[in-house]
Amino acid sequence: MIILGVDPGLTRCGVGVVEAGAYRRLSFIHVDVVRSDPHASQDLRLKTIYDGLCAKMDRFIPDVVSIERVFAQENRNTVLGTAQAAGMAMLAAAQRGIPVALHTPTEAKLAITGNGMAQKVQVERMVARILGLNTLPKPADAADALAQAICHALRPAGALQGGEREEHLTEAQRQWAEATQRAVKAQHRRNVDRGM
Amino acid sequence: MIILGVDPGLTRCGVGVVEAGAYRRLSFIHVDVVRSDPHASQDLRLKTIYDGLCAKMDRFIPDVVSIERVFAQENRNTVLGTAQAAGMAMLAAAQRGIPVALHTPTEAKLAITGNGMAQKVQVERMVARILGLNTLPKPADAADALAQAICHALRPAGALQGGEREEHLTEAQRQWAEATQRAVKAQHRRNVDRGM
Repeated sequence: MIILGVDPGLTRCGVGVVEAGAYRRLSFIHVDVVRSDPHASQDLRLKTIYDGLCAKMDRFIPDVVSIERVFAQENRNTVLGTAQAAGMAMLAAAQRGIPVALHTPTEAKLAITGNGMAQKVQVERMVARILGLNTLPKPADAADALAQAICHALRPAGALQGGEREEHLTEAQRQWAEATQRAVKAQHRRNVDRGM
Repeated sequence: MIILGVDPGLTRCGVGVVEAGAYRRLSFIHVDVVRSDPHASQDLRLKTIYDGLCAKMDRFIPDVVSIERVFAQENRNTVLGTAQAAGMAMLAAAQRGIPVALHTPTEAKLAITGNGMAQKVQVERMVARILGLNTLPKPADAADALAQAICHALRPAGALQGGEREEHLTEAQRQWAEATQRAVKAQHRRNVDRGM
């Protein structure tokens, strides 16, 4: 199964592609950053991001597109552009009939390091180790895109997607759901503390 | 000049089309609401909105697309979907080489009623009067989309777009810029008062 991960952004939109084989073995396929000119108008920037994401999807024909979930309480200066870039990825996937999964950064950290609060560098090191890379993927957007793709492959079977109900969970699924909820609540508390 | 106004939304996206003739005479051409199923997944909903907006642009071939500007401090539950719907309109316009203008609700109220703080029903009545409609346009999203289109036609010549600098303004342009700034600041104060 080919998974294309997206770390959405208007200036830099990370794209990471991995192949998930038997026994959850993961292989690195591609990583890149689609960029748009910060001095261009918003509509042209979105078209640049959209065109770049379409080209990646047409090149790697992913079975699923895994996009980092955007929250409204994030940085007000960039959150709308980030949400719109995520929208470009969703549209490009929907036009190709490719299913879309959304995972929070906390879910990605949890799936990759076992700790939803892991530091960025810990996640980057684990991404490199899981994929057998000799160096850490750069820039951060590229690493986050790979983390999104890996997260989708390594999440517990049947892990909840947004809006799904917590019925008939296995023990592993329940632990994942609980850990995610704890981490999301802690993130929310930090945002409130910081007046966001 | 054909102006297609958009009141962006994920559940209901208003579209209003007007023709601006000589002496700023405005004619009503079309009003409609593009809807998406709230129970569908986000990616399919965005594709529905995008397809609907593309169909409107291909039918009316506007010279400009005027979209209501979205602010990050708006309702957290819907702001990301609203921003993404606006992104769909921007992409559809950019793909057709149609220039995009963004106007705040305050600018629309100011251009249409002369008062950036006008009540919704005042704006709707003026929209109907300006376009010679016998009834108020419904639903609200449709009226707001027409207001966006009218706003673009009636704005002072050379009115500032976001990011433009306030140099060499005529007196009318300066008044517009000042009134807009006052209204935006007042809106911001109300948001702060309401803890948004």
